[in-house]
Amino acid sequence: MINHFLATWFSIETHKTVIVTGFMLRLTKIERTLTGIPGLDEMLGGGFTRGRVILVLGEPGAGKTIMCSQFLLNGIQKFGEKGLFVSLEENKQHYSDEMGTFGWDIAGVEKSGELTFIDASPIRSLSDEVQVGGMSIGKSDFSLVSLLEVIKNRALSTGVKRIVVDPISHLIFQFSDGPQRRKALLDLVEALAKTGATCLLASELREVGGTTRRLQLEEYLVHGVIILQSTSSGRSMERIIQVEKMRGASIERAPKPYRITENGIEVYPKESVI
Amino acid sequence: MINHFLATWFSIETHKTVIVTGFMLRLTKIERTLTGIPGLDEMLGGGFTRGRVILVLGEPGAGKTIMCSQFLLNGIQKFGEKGLFVSLEENKQHYSDEMGTFGWDIAGVEKSGELTFIDASPIRSLSDEVQVGGMSIGKSDFSLVSLLEVIKNRALSTGVKRIVVDPISHLIFQFSDGPQRRKALLDLVEALAKTGATCLLASELREVGGTTRRLQLEEYLVHGVIILQSTSSGRSMERIIQVEKMRGASIERAPKPYRITENGIEVYPKESVI
Amino acid sequence: MINHFLATWFSIETHKTVIVTGFMLRLTKIERTLTGIPGLDEMLGGGFTRGRVILVLGEPGAGKTIMCSQFLLNGIQKFGEKGLFVSLEENKQHYSDEMGTFGWDIAGVEKSGELTFIDASPIRSLSDEVQVGGMSIGKSDFSLVSLLEVIKNRALSTGVKRIVVDPISHLIFQFSDGPQRRKALLDLVEALAKTGATCLLASELREVGGTTRRLQLEEYLVHGVIILQSTSSGRSMERIIQVEKMRGASIERAPKPYRITENGIEVYPKESVI
Amino acid sequence: MINHFLATWFSIETHKTVIVTGFMLRLTKIERTLTGIPGLDEMLGGGFTRGRVILVLGEPGAGKTIMCSQFLLNGIQKFGEKGLFVSLEENKQHYSDEMGTFGWDIAGVEKSGELTFIDASPIRSLSDEVQVGGMSIGKSDFSLVSLLEVIKNRALSTGVKRIVVDPISHLIFQFSDGPQRRKALLDLVEALAKTGATCLLASELREVGGTTRRLQLEEYLVHGVIILQSTSSGRSMERIIQVEKMRGASIERAPKPYRITENGIEVYPKESVI
Amino acid sequence: MINHFLATWFSIETHKTVIVTGFMLRLTKIERTLTGIPGLDEMLGGGFTRGRVILVLGEPGAGKTIMCSQFLLNGIQKFGEKGLFVSLEENKQHYSDEMGTFGWDIAGVEKSGELTFIDASPIRSLSDEVQVGGMSIGKSDFSLVSLLEVIKNRALSTGVKRIVVDPISHLIFQFSDGPQRRKALLDLVEALAKTGATCLLASELREVGGTTRRLQLEEYLVHGVIILQSTSSGRSMERIIQVEKMRGASIERAPKPYRITENGIEVYPKESVI
Amino acid sequence: MINHFLATWFSIETHKTVIVTGFMLRLTKIERTLTGIPGLDEMLGGGFTRGRVILVLGEPGAGKTIMCSQFLLNGIQKFGEKGLFVSLEENKQHYSDEMGTFGWDIAGVEKSGELTFIDASPIRSLSDEVQVGGMSIGKSDFSLVSLLEVIKNRALSTGVKRIVVDPISHLIFQFSDGPQRRKALLDLVEALAKTGATCLLASELREVGGTTRRLQLEEYLVHGVIILQSTSSGRSMERIIQVEKMRGASIERAPKPYRITENGIEVYPKESVI
Repeated sequence: MINHFLATWFSIETHKTVIVTGFMLRLTKIERTLTGIPGLDEMLGGGFTRGRVILVLGEPGAGKTIMCSQFLLNGIQKFGEKGLFVSLEENKQHYSDEMGTFGWDIAGVEKSGELTFIDASPIRSLSDEVQVGGMSIGKSDFSLVSLLEVIKNRALSTGVKRIVVDPISHLIFQFSDGPQRRKALLDLVEALAKTGATCLLASELREVGGTTRRLQLEEYLVHGVIILQSTSSGRSMERIIQVEKMRGASIERAPKPYRITENGIEVYPKESVI
Repeated sequence: MINHFLATWFSIETHKTVIVTGFMLRLTKIERTLTGIPGLDEMLGGGFTRGRVILVLGEPGAGKTIMCSQFLLNGIQKFGEKGLFVSLEENKQHYSDEMGTFGWDIAGVEKSGELTFIDASPIRSLSDEVQVGGMSIGKSDFSLVSLLEVIKNRALSTGVKRIVVDPISHLIFQFSDGPQRRKALLDLVEALAKTGATCLLASELREVGGTTRRLQLEEYLVHGVIILQSTSSGRSMERIIQVEKMRGASIERAPKPYRITENGIEVYPKESVI
Repeated sequence: MINHFLATWFSIETHKTVIVTGFMLRLTKIERTLTGIPGLDEMLGGGFTRGRVILVLGEPGAGKTIMCSQFLLNGIQKFGEKGLFVSLEENKQHYSDEMGTFGWDIAGVEKSGELTFIDASPIRSLSDEVQVGGMSIGKSDFSLVSLLEVIKNRALSTGVKRIVVDPISHLIFQFSDGPQRRKALLDLVEALAKTGATCLLASELREVGGTTRRLQLEEYLVHGVIILQSTSSGRSMERIIQVEKMRGASIERAPKPYRITENGIEVYPKESVI
Repeated sequence: MINHFLATWFSIETHKTVIVTGFMLRLTKIERTLTGIPGLDEMLGGGFTRGRVILVLGEPGAGKTIMCSQFLLNGIQKFGEKGLFVSLEENKQHYSDEMGTFGWDIAGVEKSGELTFIDASPIRSLSDEVQVGGMSIGKSDFSLVSLLEVIKNRALSTGVKRIVVDPISHLIFQFSDGPQRRKALLDLVEALAKTGATCLLASELREVGGTTRRLQLEEYLVHGVIILQSTSSGRSMERIIQVEKMRGASIERAPKPYRITENGIEVYPKESVI
Repeated sequence: MINHFLATWFSIETHKTVIVTGFMLRLTKIERTLTGIPGLDEMLGGGFTRGRVILVLGEPGAGKTIMCSQFLLNGIQKFGEKGLFVSLEENKQHYSDEMGTFGWDIAGVEKSGELTFIDASPIRSLSDEVQVGGMSIGKSDFSLVSLLEVIKNRALSTGVKRIVVDPISHLIFQFSDGPQRRKALLDLVEALAKTGATCLLASELREVGGTTRRLQLEEYLVHGVIILQSTSSGRSMERIIQVEKMRGASIERAPKPYRITENGIEVYPKESVI
Repeated sequence: MINHFLATWFSIETHKTVIVTGFMLRLTKIERTLTGIPGLDEMLGGGFTRGRVILVLGEPGAGKTIMCSQFLLNGIQKFGEKGLFVSLEENKQHYSDEMGTFGWDIAGVEKSGELTFIDASPIRSLSDEVQVGGMSIGKSDFSLVSLLEVIKNRALSTGVKRIVVDPISHLIFQFSDGPQRRKALLDLVEALAKTGATCLLASELREVGGTTRRLQLEEYLVHGVIILQSTSSGRSMERIIQVEKMRGASIERAPKPYRITENGIEVYPKESVI
């Protein structure tokens, strides 16, 4: 299936990208999975590296949830890959409503079994009885450990190929101690990596508008990092996306403009940032 | 009721906004509630998303209390929505006096039962006997937990549709430990969200005048963020408002000028910031 | 009395200010009390809001003590309002000498009973026997609590209408823990607010010369903030004053020049800062 | 062997470098080992100083792993020096796949015994049973101490001359206390130094894009530091490499451009950074 | 004596300063004591305010010890005021040698009884037997408390009018806790103030070369602050002095150039900084 | 011996320096000891002040060890002063090799007894048996205290006149607590001062490339500070040296260029920095 799309995509790609993909085939075949997000696959040199954990880091309102959902829904609708959305913030109704504004039928794909939605928002405050994807988990059990168990079981039993966890900020800020935060995130990353699915983690950029950027804890633990920001160009603001790292892929690292349209996110890899 | 106003508002809106609202209707109907604040509803693409918790973050003197009150009073007077004002700083007399300077009759709407005022300022120092909306609460009971109970009960019994908590800084600075602060705020946000009302939280921008901004704890926990600041343009100062994020809404993210007039806040979404 | 001066002042004010004051009368009458400091009342839109606690934040040497004393003495000499000066730094002799350089007769107004001077400087080190306004307080009693008692009693028994506490830095830096500092300041602010007098707190700007400013703890707890700074314009330095916030008042927020003359502070609200 | 290559390299070098190498021979012979990375040996004034520990510090996505691997593989293929790769992040399969995209046959050189791969990634979370280069190490034993033992034993038994540890960030962030972090790193550096091999440590630049740089802990403990960064030049980004220090070598300290080509890293020591 | 010099000084002063001094005489006579340092008395509007504690804050190498010693020696030689030098860094021999390079005869004035030198440098490490001005103080007694006793006793018994403590950094950095540091400094300042002498404290500027300056702890506790810095003007460096605050005095606050000549420090209050 | 060289040096000096040295002779003779480093003695106004402890603070790769060694070897070869090198980082072989690249025969001067080398690098990790200059010190004894004993004994028994400790960073970072770090450094400085030798301490600049510099702990404890940095001038980098402070000496404080040549460091005090 992927090969089919790669083939299609090859034909529309620039010379440069073909070369890139070309030498990737020389010795090893790092499998890719296309995002289907217009322009993003080109920046990535052929989609995400399959089975790896990628961080989507962005300003408030940058469209992190939109990008992650688009990745999931394209997987379902274009590439035949089942998806799992682990929400640490919104409940299913709000999530479904928000995505519906882009014409995305969350309820539909969930009913068909192609999307699983886990409302893990209660983990934020560690209290109350929790409903996880229809399964009820007792208060005391609902720790990070059991969340990871639930994710792994779901991923394996339903054969999901794409997982989103949105946002991981809540996991980080529950701890004030650096090594503890790091341990919680690492456990999450490793549990996700073991599922074999391609995974996106959404997280907030802790500082906006500066020229110097202090690396965030979560960047050390993942295999790829995408950054979504805004920049002022004269009197208007422009959204910019940057692929900061992607292990095993030859990427375009220069920032490129993107927009949030009525169909979701669109990236313009041929335009330059002003 | 809302539909009526949305209709009215549609007719005066630009083409762009109509499209935005247009595709919102394609699949889901994220309900909106108009602020009635001139120009702000346009920036928000049709008012706040109903039932969500929104942060109004501003410099000292930026007009946070004015904007929040205007939202409440417009709710009462234009949209038939009852309001609740939870004050963590000013007592009723001071609040009423200050709002009176804009011609807003706090005493009147409170007498009519359309506005409920909770003086929760004693929670700042956690001492003395407390009068909460006419009901007396003993010293030891007046913790954050009981405040949340009072808010929920009031909201449900009186059917309020709009709630303001002003300012939340006091809840944050009572704790020196990050996770504790986060827990207190999260409890507040979740209690508010359960009321079904549209809620505004006022909070102070911790740093003014810089180009880099470090995200504040409270921004991670809410569904929308509005920022009120000043900027120097030549010899005068200009007030600017920015809608940083608003889940489920297609917003104008560029900063726009606003003024505090004798009728309250006015936003100028068609002007640009110098 | 105030009305008399307001009337006088009206006649010399600009059109804009009249309007401001005009709509203040529409519904409520937030009482004002004039500072009598040339130019400052105009920036404040008619003086301080009566009965509120205002912070005077300034660089070292900016004239905080001068401004606060001028407010007190004008109260006594022009507006018939008794004053109380709570000193956390200087003893009476030094204070009296320093103010005498502006021709202000501290000893005279104290003898007449119009000014009360409390030397609370021992609270800085919490030791030795303390003389408070002629009354002797034992070592162990002289805590913040007893200082607040003394202030309240004095204020009520002598009917003071204006209180100055100079500087509050000493109260803040006795504690290394944020919430403890905040509690001490909040106790002070609330005790002052209960006296019904209009109160000024002097405090040091913790950072000078920058473009970004981190809000200081004390700014969160007061009803108004005035900032006194210096700026370099070419080869000379210019003093600038800014009214950052003033609850219930329509203020001029742009920074304006001021000077320390032989008669005390003079503000130039019609000039602009270079 | 080295002499042979040095001779070759001499002939293509500039006058300046010849002099540099010239006086190095005056009294002592600090042995060098060529990296074989195009342009880098010239910047280093003749390769790395043999037997020393060098830090490769870079932004996310700067190509740290690529540079380190190129150093190892060139050692094997061009200079007859066996290599050891200690991975604290990727498992063998991922590493092998990623390097394969540059046409580098990790499996081949490992099979021939010229490269040893130690998957020490479990040390990141200190749990589970660990497979170290085919040898199984029990959970409780797999501490930093035993890792160092394994490295030393392997290095001695197989006679490796080049060692890479990638990345050391995981060793640093397991501790929140400065001296503890320092001790762990120092133990690593000293264990590596005792092997007599030339060693590269990969680590992340903690801050990107600034003009001021705060030294990182690991820089104090090594004998050489190379920094890989990006800089924006107009609309495109340029990668730059800087040799910050290299004990005993006369280096080019000005930053120079480099690229990641299909054959790995190429440095352009004759070009200047824009 | 002072009056005599003031009179002399009046005649050479500008019109502005005469006015300043003029109104100082209107009600109170804040006594001044001339430094005798060329140009500095003019910046200070007539010398230091007698009996107060003034901070001399400067970069390393700015000449803090030189300025303080010049103040002491001028007191002895020109104004008939005995001096006390409390050294927390240098022993008598080194101090004497260094001052001798300006032609200042420390040994001579000490022998004549006009200068007392206390070598309190052992307090830096709180160990060993200590020789304080010829008096031997046991190890355990030599705490800050006993140093303050010694200073007070000496000051009173010998009638010193000028005291220097150089540098106070050592008192500050012995404590890691803010309030403890503050307490130690406050004890010092109050002990000095009680002697009635005019006192200078030398301290290091913690940050050099920036445009923003964070106030240092010691600035909150003294009655005056003088800052000595360098600034680059084109290819040369210029030394600049600024009187930041001086309670009770009308000072020149703009920075002015100064130089360290063979006769000590000279200030140029009529020149401007480039 | 020194006088001889001073005489020689006088004749080649500028008028200004002669004057400087001139008035140094007026009252006291602060003895100097020439570094013999081309250009540096001129910047220092006649070499280091004999018997004092001077800090050489520099970026990584700035040549701190080179400068310190040059000072030692010139002492031996030109001024007849024995030297002691206390190494906290490199062992004798590495140090000797590195210095040999400048044609400096470490083994030779050590054999002749003119240089003593103490390998104190084990103090970095406080473990293992230690060889100190041929003398074996047991594990538990090798604390800072015993290192200081060894230094003092060696210095006295062999009559060394110049001591280098390189680098002191290791002593600082073994402690996380400020006052502890300070105590360790102070103990070192005082032990060195008691030997009567002129001492250099090498340390790393904690921040590079900025315009603001935060003073480092060690700067407060020494008698002189020299800073070695790089600056970008157009496309090349220039090395600059600055003598920040030198008690008792009249120094050139403006930064000057220096280079690392095949003969070691050369300073160009007559050139200006671009």
